[in-house]
Amino acid sequence: MEKKIAPLSRLIDQFERMPGIGHKSAQRLAFYVLNMTDGEAKSLTAAITEAHEKIRRCSVCCDLTDTESCSVCENPSRDRSVICVVEDPRDVMAIERTHEYNGLYHVLHGVISPLNSIGPEDLTTKELISRLSDNTVSEVIMATNPTVEGEATAVFLSRIIKPLGITVSRLAYGVPVGADLEYADEITLSKAIEGRKTL
Amino acid sequence: MEKKIAPLSRLIDQFERMPGIGHKSAQRLAFYVLNMTDGEAKSLTAAITEAHEKIRRCSVCCDLTDTESCSVCENPSRDRSVICVVEDPRDVMAIERTHEYNGLYHVLHGVISPLNSIGPEDLTTKELISRLSDNTVSEVIMATNPTVEGEATAVFLSRIIKPLGITVSRLAYGVPVGADLEYADEITLSKAIEGRKTL
Repeated sequence: MEKKIAPLSRLIDQFERMPGIGHKSAQRLAFYVLNMTDGEAKSLTAAITEAHEKIRRCSVCCDLTDTESCSVCENPSRDRSVICVVEDPRDVMAIERTHEYNGLYHVLHGVISPLNSIGPEDLTTKELISRLSDNTVSEVIMATNPTVEGEATAVFLSRIIKPLGITVSRLAYGVPVGADLEYADEITLSKAIEGRKTL
Repeated sequence: MEKKIAPLSRLIDQFERMPGIGHKSAQRLAFYVLNMTDGEAKSLTAAITEAHEKIRRCSVCCDLTDTESCSVCENPSRDRSVICVVEDPRDVMAIERTHEYNGLYHVLHGVISPLNSIGPEDLTTKELISRLSDNTVSEVIMATNPTVEGEATAVFLSRIIKPLGITVSRLAYGVPVGADLEYADEITLSKAIEGRKTL
Protein backbone atom coordinates (compact mmCIF):
# COMPACT_ATOMS: atom_id res chain seq x y z
CA MET A 1 0.00 0.00 0.00
CA GLU A 2 1.85 3.02 -1.27
CA LYS A 3 1.18 6.07 0.82
CA LYS A 4 -1.18 8.22 -1.24
CA ILE A 5 -1.86 11.90 -0.78
CA ALA A 6 -4.68 12.60 -3.20
CA PRO A 7 -3.77 16.16 -4.27
CA LEU A 8 -0.14 15.14 -4.72
CA SER A 9 -1.05 12.07 -6.79
CA ARG A 10 -3.29 14.20 -8.97
CA LEU A 11 -0.49 16.69 -9.58
CA ILE A 12 2.04 13.95 -10.38
CA ASP A 13 -0.54 12.50 -12.73
CA GLN A 14 -0.93 15.79 -14.55
CA PHE A 15 2.82 16.13 -15.05
CA GLU A 16 3.15 12.51 -16.13
CA ARG A 17 0.84 13.16 -19.07
CA MET A 18 3.24 15.73 -20.47
CA PRO A 19 5.51 14.72 -23.35
CA GLY A 20 8.90 13.36 -22.27
CA ILE A 21 7.98 13.30 -18.57
CA GLY A 22 8.14 9.90 -16.85
CA HIS A 23 6.99 9.02 -13.35
CA LYS A 24 10.20 10.05 -11.57
CA SER A 25 10.38 13.39 -13.38
CA ALA A 26 6.69 14.01 -12.71
CA GLN A 27 7.35 13.38 -9.02
CA ARG A 28 10.31 15.74 -9.04
CA LEU A 29 8.22 18.47 -10.73
CA ALA A 30 5.36 17.98 -8.26
CA PHE A 31 7.71 18.36 -5.30
CA TYR A 32 9.17 21.44 -6.95
CA VAL A 33 5.65 22.90 -7.10
CA LEU A 34 5.05 22.05 -3.42
CA ASN A 35 8.20 23.93 -2.47
CA MET A 36 7.20 27.04 -4.40
CA THR A 37 6.13 30.17 -2.56
CA ASP A 38 2.47 31.16 -2.94
CA GLY A 39 3.50 33.90 -5.35
CA GLU A 40 5.50 31.51 -7.53
CA ALA A 41 2.65 29.00 -7.68
CA LYS A 42 0.28 31.80 -8.71
CA SER A 43 2.66 32.96 -11.47
CA LEU A 44 2.86 29.41 -12.78
CA THR A 45 -0.90 28.86 -12.95
CA ALA A 46 -1.39 32.39 -14.32
CA ALA A 47 1.17 31.72 -17.09
CA ILE A 48 -0.61 28.49 -18.02
CA THR A 49 -4.06 30.10 -18.03
CA GLU A 50 -2.87 33.20 -19.88
CA ALA A 51 -1.02 31.29 -22.57
CA HIS A 52 -3.90 28.91 -23.00
CA GLU A 53 -6.51 31.66 -23.25
CA LYS A 54 -4.66 34.31 -25.24
CA ILE A 55 -2.65 32.36 -27.76
CA ARG A 56 -4.46 31.49 -30.96
CA ARG A 57 -3.69 31.11 -34.63
CA CYS A 58 -2.76 34.14 -36.74
CA SER A 59 -5.68 34.84 -39.08
CA VAL A 60 -3.24 35.03 -42.01
CA CYS A 61 -0.43 32.48 -41.61
CA CYS A 62 -1.91 30.24 -38.87
CA ASP A 63 1.24 30.64 -36.74
CA LEU A 64 0.65 31.15 -33.03
CA THR A 65 0.06 34.70 -31.84
CA ASP A 66 -1.61 36.64 -29.06
CA THR A 67 -2.87 39.32 -31.46
CA GLU A 68 -5.22 39.15 -34.44
CA SER A 69 -2.39 38.59 -36.90
CA CYS A 70 1.17 37.72 -35.95
CA SER A 71 4.22 39.99 -35.78
CA VAL A 72 5.68 38.62 -39.02
CA CYS A 73 2.46 39.11 -41.00
CA GLU A 74 2.08 42.61 -39.52
CA ASN A 75 5.67 43.65 -40.28
CA PRO A 76 5.64 45.97 -43.35
CA SER A 77 9.32 45.28 -44.11
CA ARG A 78 8.77 41.56 -44.78
CA ASP A 79 8.74 40.40 -48.39
CA ARG A 80 5.14 39.53 -49.18
CA SER A 81 5.99 37.69 -52.41
CA VAL A 82 7.46 34.60 -50.68
CA ILE A 83 5.72 32.18 -48.33
CA CYS A 84 7.64 29.54 -46.43
CA VAL A 85 5.43 26.56 -45.56
CA VAL A 86 6.32 24.75 -42.30
CA GLU A 87 4.76 21.98 -40.23
CA ASP A 88 4.94 23.55 -36.82
CA PRO A 89 5.26 26.93 -35.03
CA ARG A 90 8.63 25.78 -33.68
CA ASP A 91 9.91 25.58 -37.27
CA VAL A 92 9.07 29.28 -37.71
CA MET A 93 11.15 30.04 -34.61
CA ALA A 94 14.03 27.94 -35.96
CA ILE A 95 14.02 29.69 -39.34
CA GLU A 96 13.70 33.15 -37.73
CA ARG A 97 16.81 32.40 -35.69
CA THR A 98 18.84 32.11 -38.92
CA HIS A 99 18.11 35.81 -39.77
CA GLU A 100 18.32 34.65 -43.39
CA TYR A 101 14.70 34.74 -44.39
CA ASN A 102 12.61 37.86 -44.84
CA GLY A 103 9.41 36.49 -46.38
CA LEU A 104 6.18 35.33 -44.79
CA TYR A 105 5.27 31.93 -43.35
CA HIS A 106 2.43 29.47 -43.43
CA VAL A 107 2.06 26.94 -40.61
CA LEU A 108 0.33 23.70 -41.59
CA HIS A 109 0.01 22.40 -38.00
CA GLY A 110 0.93 18.89 -39.06
CA VAL A 111 1.70 16.81 -42.13
CA ILE A 112 -0.35 14.52 -44.29
CA SER A 113 -0.12 11.11 -42.63
CA PRO A 114 -2.50 8.41 -43.84
CA LEU A 115 -1.32 6.05 -41.08
CA ASN A 116 -2.57 8.51 -38.46
CA SER A 117 -5.56 9.38 -40.68
CA ILE A 118 -4.44 12.98 -41.10
CA GLY A 119 -5.44 14.27 -44.53
CA PRO A 120 -4.95 17.66 -46.20
CA GLU A 121 -8.29 18.81 -44.78
CA ASP A 122 -6.88 18.45 -41.23
CA LEU A 123 -4.09 20.91 -42.02
CA THR A 124 -4.34 24.61 -42.90
CA THR A 125 -4.23 23.78 -46.63
CA LYS A 126 -7.36 25.79 -47.45
CA GLU A 127 -5.97 28.88 -45.75
CA LEU A 128 -2.72 28.52 -47.71
CA ILE A 129 -4.46 28.21 -51.07
CA SER A 130 -6.67 31.22 -50.36
CA ARG A 131 -3.56 33.32 -49.61
CA LEU A 132 -2.27 32.58 -53.12
CA SER A 133 -5.34 33.91 -54.94
CA ASP A 134 -4.45 37.63 -55.07
CA ASN A 135 -1.27 37.27 -57.18
CA THR A 136 1.11 38.88 -54.64
CA VAL A 137 2.92 35.59 -54.00
CA SER A 138 5.50 34.51 -56.57
CA GLU A 139 7.26 31.72 -54.64
CA VAL A 140 6.31 29.12 -52.06
CA ILE A 141 9.17 27.42 -50.20
CA MET A 142 8.29 23.98 -48.89
CA ALA A 143 10.08 23.71 -45.53
CA THR A 144 8.31 20.65 -44.17
CA ASN A 145 10.59 18.21 -42.38
CA PRO A 146 12.80 15.97 -44.55
CA THR A 147 10.82 12.88 -43.55
CA VAL A 148 8.64 10.62 -45.67
CA GLU A 149 5.51 12.41 -44.51
CA GLY A 150 7.01 15.90 -44.81
CA GLU A 151 8.16 15.02 -48.30
CA ALA A 152 4.75 13.67 -49.31
CA THR A 153 3.04 16.79 -47.97
CA ALA A 154 5.44 19.02 -49.94
CA VAL A 155 4.77 17.06 -53.14
CA PHE A 156 1.00 17.10 -52.56
CA LEU A 157 0.92 20.88 -52.02
CA SER A 158 3.26 21.60 -54.92
CA ARG A 159 0.87 19.76 -57.27
CA ILE A 160 -1.88 22.17 -56.24
CA ILE A 161 0.25 25.31 -56.21
CA LYS A 162 2.36 24.92 -59.39
CA PRO A 163 -0.68 25.09 -61.72
CA LEU A 164 -1.39 28.57 -60.24
CA GLY A 165 1.83 29.77 -61.94
CA ILE A 166 3.70 30.09 -58.64
CA THR A 167 7.27 28.81 -58.20
CA VAL A 168 7.45 26.04 -55.62
CA SER A 169 10.85 25.31 -54.07
CA ARG A 170 12.09 22.85 -51.47
CA LEU A 171 14.78 23.27 -48.80
CA ALA A 172 18.13 21.91 -50.04
CA TYR A 173 19.19 18.48 -48.84
CA GLY A 174 22.77 17.88 -47.85
CA VAL A 175 25.21 17.15 -45.09
CA PRO A 176 24.65 19.34 -42.03
CA VAL A 177 27.35 21.97 -41.53
CA GLY A 178 29.89 20.90 -38.92
CA ALA A 179 28.90 17.24 -39.13
CA ASP A 180 31.16 14.35 -39.93
CA LEU A 181 30.78 12.78 -43.39
CA GLU A 182 31.57 9.42 -41.85
CA TYR A 183 28.36 9.53 -39.84
CA ALA A 184 26.04 10.84 -42.53
CA ASP A 185 23.43 8.31 -43.62
CA GLU A 186 23.45 7.00 -47.20
CA ILE A 187 20.35 8.85 -48.35
CA THR A 188 21.55 12.22 -47.03
CA LEU A 189 24.96 11.67 -48.62
CA SER A 190 23.58 10.68 -52.00
CA LYS A 191 21.26 13.72 -51.90
CA ALA A 192 24.31 15.86 -51.09
CA ILE A 193 26.26 14.42 -54.04
CA GLU A 194 23.27 14.80 -56.33
CA GLY A 195 22.86 18.46 -55.35
CA ARG A 196 26.57 19.33 -55.53
CA LYS A 197 27.49 22.88 -56.57
CA THR A 198 30.31 24.04 -58.83
CA LEU A 199 32.88 26.01 -56.85
CA MET B 1 15.09 39.01 -33.79
CA GLU B 2 13.42 35.85 -32.61
CA LYS B 3 9.68 35.98 -32.99
CA LYS B 4 8.34 36.56 -29.48
CA ILE B 5 4.82 35.90 -28.28
CA ALA B 6 4.79 37.29 -24.75
CA PRO B 7 2.39 34.81 -23.07
CA LEU B 8 4.20 31.90 -24.73
CA SER B 9 7.63 33.17 -23.64
CA ARG B 10 6.38 33.59 -20.10
CA LEU B 11 5.07 30.03 -20.05
CA ILE B 12 8.31 28.60 -21.48
CA ASP B 13 10.14 30.62 -18.84
CA GLN B 14 8.07 29.08 -16.07
CA PHE B 15 8.74 25.54 -17.26
CA GLU B 16 12.44 26.27 -17.75
CA ARG B 17 12.80 27.03 -14.05
CA MET B 18 11.71 23.51 -13.13
CA PRO B 19 14.36 20.95 -12.18
CA GLY B 20 15.69 18.93 -15.10
CA ILE B 21 13.84 20.98 -17.71
CA GLY B 22 16.00 22.70 -20.33
CA HIS B 23 14.91 25.20 -22.98
CA LYS B 24 13.84 22.61 -25.56
CA SER B 25 11.81 20.60 -23.05
CA ALA B 26 10.24 23.79 -21.70
CA GLN B 27 9.21 24.67 -25.24
CA ARG B 28 7.76 21.19 -25.77
CA LEU B 29 5.78 21.42 -22.52
CA ALA B 30 4.50 24.90 -23.39
CA PHE B 31 3.25 23.70 -26.78
CA TYR B 32 1.64 20.75 -25.06
CA VAL B 33 -0.24 23.20 -22.82
CA LEU B 34 -1.36 25.25 -25.83
CA ASN B 35 -2.79 22.14 -27.44
CA MET B 36 -4.78 21.19 -24.33
CA THR B 37 -8.54 21.55 -24.30
CA ASP B 38 -9.93 24.22 -21.97
CA GLY B 39 -10.96 21.50 -19.54
CA GLU B 40 -7.50 19.93 -19.49
CA ALA B 41 -5.83 23.29 -18.89
CA LYS B 42 -8.23 23.94 -16.02
CA SER B 43 -7.47 20.52 -14.47
CA LEU B 44 -3.76 21.25 -14.69
CA THR B 45 -3.95 24.64 -12.98
CA ALA B 46 -6.45 23.27 -10.44
CA ALA B 47 -4.08 20.40 -9.59
CA ILE B 48 -1.22 22.84 -9.08
CA THR B 49 -3.28 25.18 -6.91
CA GLU B 50 -4.88 22.37 -4.92
CA ALA B 51 -1.61 20.59 -4.22
CA HIS B 52 0.07 23.83 -3.31
CA GLU B 53 -2.71 24.95 -0.98
CA LYS B 54 -3.73 21.68 0.66
CA ILE B 55 -0.50 19.82 1.16
CA ARG B 56 1.31 20.60 4.38
CA ARG B 57 3.46 18.82 6.93
CA CYS B 58 1.99 16.14 9.18
CA SER B 59 1.86 17.54 12.72
CA VAL B 60 3.52 14.36 14.01
CA CYS B 61 6.09 13.08 11.52
CA CYS B 62 6.49 16.16 9.26
CA ASP B 63 5.81 14.07 6.16
CA LEU B 64 3.56 15.65 3.55
CA THR B 65 -0.17 15.21 4.00
CA ASP B 66 -3.43 16.88 3.12
CA THR B 67 -4.91 16.13 6.54
CA GLU B 68 -3.89 17.16 10.07
CA SER B 69 -1.74 14.09 10.55
CA CYS B 70 -0.70 11.69 7.80
CA SER B 71 -2.14 8.27 6.97
CA VAL B 72 0.82 6.41 8.49
CA CYS B 73 0.65 8.29 11.79
CA GLU B 74 -3.14 7.80 11.87
CA ASN B 75 -2.95 4.08 11.14
CA PRO B 76 -3.56 2.14 14.40
CA SER B 77 -1.89 -1.02 13.04
CA ARG B 78 1.53 0.66 12.64
CA ASP B 79 4.17 -0.16 15.22
CA ARG B 80 4.56 2.98 17.34
CA SER B 81 7.78 1.83 18.97
CA VAL B 82 9.94 2.35 15.86
CA ILE B 83 10.62 5.59 14.01
CA CYS B 84 12.40 5.62 10.68
CA VAL B 85 14.13 8.95 10.06
CA VAL B 86 14.41 10.02 6.41
CA GLU B 87 15.55 13.12 4.57
CA ASP B 88 12.69 13.59 2.18
CA PRO B 89 9.01 12.65 1.67
CA ARG B 90 10.04 10.69 -1.43
CA ASP B 91 12.09 8.42 0.81
CA VAL B 92 8.94 7.56 2.77
CA MET B 93 7.26 6.59 -0.50
CA ALA B 94 10.27 4.46 -1.46
CA ILE B 95 10.31 2.61 1.88
CA GLU B 96 6.53 2.10 1.84
CA ARG B 97 6.88 0.42 -1.55
CA THR B 98 9.04 -2.30 0.00
CA HIS B 99 6.13 -3.42 2.27
CA GLU B 100 8.87 -4.39 4.75
CA TYR B 101 8.46 -1.70 7.31
CA ASN B 102 5.54 -1.24 9.67
CA GLY B 103 6.76 1.48 12.02
CA LEU B 104 6.41 5.23 11.88
CA TYR B 105 8.50 7.82 10.05
CA HIS B 106 10.09 11.13 10.69
CA VAL B 107 10.93 13.40 7.76
CA LEU B 108 13.85 15.76 8.34
CA HIS B 109 13.29 17.78 5.16
CA GLY B 110 16.99 17.93 4.47
CA VAL B 111 20.35 16.96 5.93
CA ILE B 112 22.92 18.80 7.94
CA SER B 113 25.16 20.46 5.37
CA PRO B 114 27.62 23.06 6.62
CA LEU B 115 28.62 23.91 3.04
CA ASN B 116 25.05 25.00 2.31
CA SER B 117 24.75 26.46 5.83
CA ILE B 118 22.02 24.00 6.79
CA GLY B 119 22.28 23.16 10.49
CA PRO B 120 20.18 20.85 12.70
CA GLU B 121 17.91 23.81 13.51
CA ASP B 122 16.87 24.01 9.83
CA LEU B 123 15.63 20.41 9.93
CA THR B 124 12.78 18.93 11.95
CA THR B 125 15.22 17.83 14.67
CA LYS B 126 13.25 19.45 17.50
CA GLU B 127 10.04 17.72 16.43
CA LEU B 128 11.88 14.38 16.35
CA ILE B 129 13.35 14.78 19.85
CA SER B 130 9.99 15.77 21.31
CA ARG B 131 8.43 12.60 19.86
CA LEU B 132 10.94 10.54 21.87
CA SER B 133 10.01 12.02 25.26
CA ASP B 134 7.01 9.82 26.14
CA ASN B 135 8.91 6.48 26.21
CA THR B 136 6.81 4.74 23.53
CA VAL B 137 9.71 4.67 21.09
CA SER B 138 12.32 1.99 21.59
CA GLU B 139 14.20 2.22 18.28
CA VAL B 140 15.07 4.93 15.79
CA ILE B 141 16.24 3.79 12.36
CA MET B 142 18.46 6.30 10.58
CA ALA B 143 17.48 6.07 6.92
CA THR B 144 19.18 9.19 5.68
CA ASN B 145 20.88 8.83 2.30
CA PRO B 146 24.18 6.90 2.26
CA THR B 147 26.11 10.08 1.40
CA VAL B 148 28.63 12.02 3.47
CA GLU B 149 25.97 14.47 4.61
CA GLY B 150 23.33 11.81 5.27
CA GLU B 151 25.89 9.85 7.27
CA ALA B 152 26.93 12.90 9.29
CA THR B 153 23.30 13.70 10.04
CA ALA B 154 22.70 10.12 11.22
CA VAL B 155 25.74 10.27 13.51
CA PHE B 156 24.75 13.70 14.84
CA LEU B 157 21.20 12.56 15.67
CA SER B 158 22.34 9.25 17.16
CA ARG B 159 24.55 11.16 19.62
CA ILE B 160 21.48 13.00 20.87
CA ILE B 161 19.14 10.00 20.86
CA LYS B 162 21.31 7.23 22.31
CA PRO B 163 21.65 8.96 25.73
CA LEU B 164 17.83 8.77 25.96
CA GLY B 165 18.16 4.97 26.20
CA ILE B 166 16.73 4.43 22.72
CA THR B 167 18.35 2.02 20.27
CA VAL B 168 19.59 3.83 17.18
CA SER B 169 20.17 1.77 14.04
CA ARG B 170 21.36 2.58 10.56
CA LEU B 171 20.24 1.13 7.24
CA ALA B 172 22.64 -1.62 6.19
CA TYR B 173 24.99 -0.91 3.34
CA GLY B 174 22.85 -2.85 0.99
CA VAL B 175 22.12 0.50 -0.58
CA PRO B 176 24.89 1.47 -2.99
CA VAL B 177 27.08 4.21 -1.49
CA GLY B 178 26.73 7.60 -3.13
CA ALA B 179 23.30 6.89 -4.61
CA ASP B 180 19.96 8.43 -3.77
CA LEU B 181 17.44 6.44 -1.66
CA GLU B 182 14.69 7.62 -3.95
CA TYR B 183 16.13 5.57 -6.81
CA ALA B 184 16.92 2.40 -4.88
CA ASP B 185 15.00 -0.69 -5.99
CA GLU B 186 12.62 -2.42 -3.57
CA ILE B 187 14.78 -5.49 -2.95
CA THR B 188 17.91 -3.52 -2.12
CA LEU B 189 15.89 -1.30 0.16
CA SER B 190 14.22 -4.14 2.01
CA LYS B 191 17.62 -5.91 2.42
CA ALA B 192 18.91 -2.68 3.89
CA ILE B 193 16.04 -2.51 6.38
CA GLU B 194 16.45 -6.19 7.29
CA GLY B 195 20.19 -5.85 7.88
CA ARG B 196 20.13 -2.60 9.85
CA LYS B 197 22.95 -2.24 12.42
CA THR B 198 23.03 -0.78 15.91
CA LEU B 199 25.11 2.40 15.98
